[in-house]
Amino acid sequence: MNHEDFFKIKDGWNLKIESLKEEQLVHYGSNLLCGNGYLGYRGTLVEWNKNQYQACVITDTYDMADDKWRELSNSPNALATEVRLNEKKLGDYPGEDQMETELNFNYKYGIFKRNSINDEKINIVSERFASYSNLHLIANNYQIKNLSNQKVELKLGINGDVWDLNGSHLENFSGEYDSSENTLYLKAETVESNITLVTALSFKFKKGKIQNLKVENEKKSIYLLMDIEAEAGGIELDRNMIVYSSNDREEPLKAALNDASSALKTGYQTLKNEHQAVWDKKWELMDIRVKGNILDQLAVRFNLYHNIIATPAHSERLPIGARGLSCQAYQGAAFWDQEIFNLPMFLFTETETAKNILKYRYHTLNGARKKAKDLGYEGAFYAWISGKSGAELCPSFFFKDVISGRKIRNHFNDWQIHVSPDISYTIWKYYLATDDIDFVVEYGSEILFEVARFLHSRVYYNQYKDQYEIIRLLGPDEYHENVDNNAFTNYQTQFALKKALYFYYKMENEYPDKLSELKTKINLNDSEITAWQQIAEKIYLPQPNGNNLIEQFDGYFDLEDTTAEVLEDRLIDKEEYWGWPNGVAVFTQVIKQADVIQLFTLHDTFNEEVLAANYDYYEPRTQHGSSLSPSQYAIVAARLGRAEETYDYFKKSAFIDLMSTNKAVSGGTFIGGVHTAAAGGIWQLIVNGFAGMKIDKKGLSFKPTLCQEWEELEFKLNYKEKKFKVSLNQNQFKLKAATSNQTELEFRVFDQKQVLKPGAEYSLKI
Amino acid sequence: MNHEDFFKIKDGWNLKIESLKEEQLVHYGSNLLCGNGYLGYRGTLVEWNKNQYQACVITDTYDMADDKWRELSNSPNALATEVRLNEKKLGDYPGEDQMETELNFNYKYGIFKRNSINDEKINIVSERFASYSNLHLIANNYQIKNLSNQKVELKLGINGDVWDLNGSHLENFSGEYDSSENTLYLKAETVESNITLVTALSFKFKKGKIQNLKVENEKKSIYLLMDIEAEAGGIELDRNMIVYSSNDREEPLKAALNDASSALKTGYQTLKNEHQAVWDKKWELMDIRVKGNILDQLAVRFNLYHNIIATPAHSERLPIGARGLSCQAYQGAAFWDQEIFNLPMFLFTETETAKNILKYRYHTLNGARKKAKDLGYEGAFYAWISGKSGAELCPSFFFKDVISGRKIRNHFNDWQIHVSPDISYTIWKYYLATDDIDFVVEYGSEILFEVARFLHSRVYYNQYKDQYEIIRLLGPDEYHENVDNNAFTNYQTQFALKKALYFYYKMENEYPDKLSELKTKINLNDSEITAWQQIAEKIYLPQPNGNNLIEQFDGYFDLEDTTAEVLEDRLIDKEEYWGWPNGVAVFTQVIKQADVIQLFTLHDTFNEEVLAANYDYYEPRTQHGSSLSPSQYAIVAARLGRAEETYDYFKKSAFIDLMSTNKAVSGGTFIGGVHTAAAGGIWQLIVNGFAGMKIDKKGLSFKPTLCQEWEELEFKLNYKEKKFKVSLNQNQFKLKAATSNQTELEFRVFDQKQVLKPGAEYSLKI
Repeated sequence: MNHEDFFKIKDGWNLKIESLKEEQLVHYGSNLLCGNGYLGYRGTLVEWNKNQYQACVITDTYDMADDKWRELSNSPNALATEVRLNEKKLGDYPGEDQMETELNFNYKYGIFKRNSINDEKINIVSERFASYSNLHLIANNYQIKNLSNQKVELKLGINGDVWDLNGSHLENFSGEYDSSENTLYLKAETVESNITLVTALSFKFKKGKIQNLKVENEKKSIYLLMDIEAEAGGIELDRNMIVYSSNDREEPLKAALNDASSALKTGYQTLKNEHQAVWDKKWELMDIRVKGNILDQLAVRFNLYHNIIATPAHSERLPIGARGLSCQAYQGAAFWDQEIFNLPMFLFTETETAKNILKYRYHTLNGARKKAKDLGYEGAFYAWISGKSGAELCPSFFFKDVISGRKIRNHFNDWQIHVSPDISYTIWKYYLATDDIDFVVEYGSEILFEVARFLHSRVYYNQYKDQYEIIRLLGPDEYHENVDNNAFTNYQTQFALKKALYFYYKMENEYPDKLSELKTKINLNDSEITAWQQIAEKIYLPQPNGNNLIEQFDGYFDLEDTTAEVLEDRLIDKEEYWGWPNGVAVFTQVIKQADVIQLFTLHDTFNEEVLAANYDYYEPRTQHGSSLSPSQYAIVAARLGRAEETYDYFKKSAFIDLMSTNKAVSGGTFIGGVHTAAAGGIWQLIVNGFAGMKIDKKGLSFKPTLCQEWEELEFKLNYKEKKFKVSLNQNQFKLKAATSNQTELEFRVFDQKQVLKPGAEYSLKI
Repeated sequence: MNHEDFFKIKDGWNLKIESLKEEQLVHYGSNLLCGNGYLGYRGTLVEWNKNQYQACVITDTYDMADDKWRELSNSPNALATEVRLNEKKLGDYPGEDQMETELNFNYKYGIFKRNSINDEKINIVSERFASYSNLHLIANNYQIKNLSNQKVELKLGINGDVWDLNGSHLENFSGEYDSSENTLYLKAETVESNITLVTALSFKFKKGKIQNLKVENEKKSIYLLMDIEAEAGGIELDRNMIVYSSNDREEPLKAALNDASSALKTGYQTLKNEHQAVWDKKWELMDIRVKGNILDQLAVRFNLYHNIIATPAHSERLPIGARGLSCQAYQGAAFWDQEIFNLPMFLFTETETAKNILKYRYHTLNGARKKAKDLGYEGAFYAWISGKSGAELCPSFFFKDVISGRKIRNHFNDWQIHVSPDISYTIWKYYLATDDIDFVVEYGSEILFEVARFLHSRVYYNQYKDQYEIIRLLGPDEYHENVDNNAFTNYQTQFALKKALYFYYKMENEYPDKLSELKTKINLNDSEITAWQQIAEKIYLPQPNGNNLIEQFDGYFDLEDTTAEVLEDRLIDKEEYWGWPNGVAVFTQVIKQADVIQLFTLHDTFNEEVLAANYDYYEPRTQHGSSLSPSQYAIVAARLGRAEETYDYFKKSAFIDLMSTNKAVSGGTFIGGVHTAAAGGIWQLIVNGFAGMKIDKKGLSFKPTLCQEWEELEFKLNYKEKKFKVSLNQNQFKLKAATSNQTELEFRVFDQKQVLKPGAEYSLKI
């Protein structure tokens, strides 16, 4: 596949799409998303509607319609536009060959630009962004050029008939137009959760005169029908879409109208400047520069951009969706992806955001406790699909058997337990990267203890073998449900127990009152601590066998040894799910994604021989059917000094969305949208992979290796309130400390200890 | 359904079928089976072949063909016959409307009789039986009547092209005709197990003269083509089919030819007399007389007959097949049915046979040990489908998803563990019924200890709840695989551990040398005994809840509460399997068969309120999709005094085969043939149900109750070497001791202790 089938490169920040292809409509919407962590407005043209997957997903609007899946709601579209010239539609409507359209997207500032032209050279130019200075705002400048002072009929307004994956979430629509303020709004309520959602629109014609105006207030929309007389051969319009829900403000309507008026006063260019200033600050720490391949540079930034806009950095109570806010797929909710894929980038750049992400897990402890109780366990069993409250959003019946049409009882929600120890793991990493013991004492410890408690109630003791085991699991590899002693899960479990114990004893020594308060609060008794100790000591951890291989789970090596290619031929239906209960991969060693390999990216327990043996064994058996997979193989490849393989994985991972390589529907379920974990994985692939950065109790360390394809790599790190610039080329690794750093840094490169004073630069020939 | 659609009653021992229906061919073969525990010759006409399911299944001939299922082999058919009169075929060939045929079957002696007549009154009469005085013999008298001294062409011989379920088992055929002895044979070898199988035929014309004889020795058959001149308007032929395998004798050919000649000399009538004498002796103890409904009387004997002929009473090394020797379905192998359904009848009649059945489990201990080891356990994990060696014959992929055509990984072979404690349970019952401590010391104890050891290695300790649990099970209800703490299995497990401990301590006191010898042999150490004690004390046993209900397994009550009728409507394909992994019953409370109810028939732990509550709850949720189910509900109904419901279940159970109410194919797998467990269940339904007989440490007891439909019931019991006759009518229960009894009997009726001296009769008005 060639990227030119999908887009053209303008520079390291900008791409363009020179003509629209109907079969790629669903991908444009996701890839060209304007977003800011509060909302995501899909990359659709204003004349498009739900048939072209137009949607604007809003955080914190969980709702369930028609007894289907609980998911985020879409806002009505306040950029809906219809233009008629001489009673004929003007625009670029799929299937109607009226205009040639070019799209441009700028990933530095998240600016979507369209330029359409017809045979008579009439030209529509429009630009928009989802503001980072006011998260509720989408600002748009819209122009029609090359009119000969004709009159056009313009229909603009707010359309509530939006693209929804699982039922219509909005009802009780009401709208109004205030001609004095040039604002209109559409208010609605979500059908189950009764959230009020207000979408407002303010507009101003910079060119063109309104000659007639009629308000059309239909069931699910409010439109203004206007005759506009062009001025100087054109029409130019600034408009602002504002969205508020009753979860944001007590009076969302007031806030929306207020912001709409205010944005109109401020004006498009100023709004854009304010917005860009926020991005400039973000990129100062978050950008990664790649020299030597402009396509790769663009792809890196595409992924960084999407990881940033997927993250509700403004809140400590909202999850990062597995598809961000690019669509409703995966219910706008957090998976283990959040801690293991999305968070690491923030942990070493925008630390506060990393903390917010972890605080979200604190605030959802009750949801996790309820889940544990409901399933007969204790402590905190975090939801596989976690929304606002932490209640389990994962439906029991997830995929569909496309052959019989019957739903499949996938067990993501009850057997895939590793999300809980994954969160404990990440708290530990957060602590290592920040020294933020206050966070651990106030928030993290309660999570750690409740997770340990859950694990205690979840493991079984095998008296015959004198070991603890974990029975009936799904590991990261989702094609094998119902397995025992998944290596990844067992190791993570031990780690989570050990860290719970570590902080328990640390608090006992250093924060005894806080500990005692917490023990009372969660009714934690000493026998539980003893049990954690016992389990951590005696949990079964699959060890490398005679061939240095770690078995993914009990009996894995006895399964049919084949490859994904062979399984492809066994498919009855291209869309069928490969996994549980009877998919083509279930009884084979073909795995969906990194599992044992994922263990290696998190833990430094095994030597290079073990890494190499397992990498070589599992790699050909991995389908990479999950977008989470390639980046993890890439990191291990880099650790093994196989930088070219890391680069191959970079190609696989970075272009998943850009070249739509992953299918949008599986087992009858829509799973399209931006793969935010893969986006976060690109940061890891570069920083943990090529730069070989690791963090442990001894501090930061590097084992750099760079692929031939790239001349140079450069990124920043924020570590324990010190800032660094890392650069790496074919011959040299450099680490430069900011002059503003307060203390020196002790770190290791290729296991050699180094010290770096503020402002100093370390360099090593490689 | 009316029985007359299937057969007519001649008397309490005999049925007839007045005209053959093509759609019932498969059932005739099973229902009208001639058998003797060594072989089963299906109820087919001699002119039929494999297309009409002609087969003669031979014990101890396990073989696997074409990589399919290992199963018993069929012998070539030495009764194959083709008759031509004036160059036209004469006989009753399906689809060719030449003769009207009536079949008669006598269940007292297992005699199959056919009588066919054509428009010209030409009449074929044939009679056969599988001898109980020589198990290798099928004797046949064959006549053609009403010929006007015409010449007929007669083709008779041995046809090796037989009906096989899973591939052809025989190869390397060779045959010979010895004209001096009037014998011929066909020898073959099984393809995988290399067993030599010899089928011999000897014949003698009592009427009719051979005028020409030609031997036709084809690849898989040997035939004689003869012109026969009728005598006195007829032809009459005695012939003997003899089967031996190399597992029976070192020189099976010699034995077969020898028996063939000898049978010819003895003559049909004498052979028949010898055979009938054996049956007369069996019936003396095994018959059950029912007055008041001749159809029911016949049906009872049909079931007793089939339980007897299914059982290889002559051997202590062969299993009772779930379909006996009526066809190859279920691989001619033992399930838990053997101990729980087939054995009880023998335990109280032909005790030696019961002992042989249990010795079979002793001789297959190594198979069970291997299975345990293979699956990562210790001790004896008995095969779900157990053949000669006790190796697991149950294939991992059992049923087929008929919608996708993909095989289903059913877990009968690894998750359905209750067969092991079921065997322990039956050893205990055998001991109670016989006082045969020698058997326990020599054989039973090793089974009990190895099963306890297996259970020890199979349970998990839930430290949080301080209890042992059994995870990932199939209980008797096979629609719910992968369940935890199946009540039936957990209770049986505790029972098996307790009985192992009981005999351990008994042997420690009374047979210390034997115990020490056994401990050395199986390397049993004292810490294991302690563990059994701990597990028996702390195993989780689901208790009756507030509504007196025992939950079948963890979470059962949370499943969709619906009925089998509703599920019928959800079927996509009539043949689809209802259970694992995605069948219509899986996520519902609809169960295939008795499960909690089955627990009640084995254990007397619960009071009548609990029995009633569970019976009323589970009954409407039970599909009775297994032939094992109705008899168990029937017994509990009787305990609750609901004799009419017991009778309804009698109707359901006794006619499963007689009126072919169970389907012959499920999930793409042939499961037809005689339901031998249901046959054994009829004995239980009457003895344990209507007579309310139980046995425990306090001895025999009765709680009789009789359905209105029956005037009187009478059966014999053989208990601790004493014999009794039980009779029960609407007003009276009687127990009469044989005068030959050596001691008196202490027993209980309705919980009142009674004593019965030899020759005395107890009677109670009810």
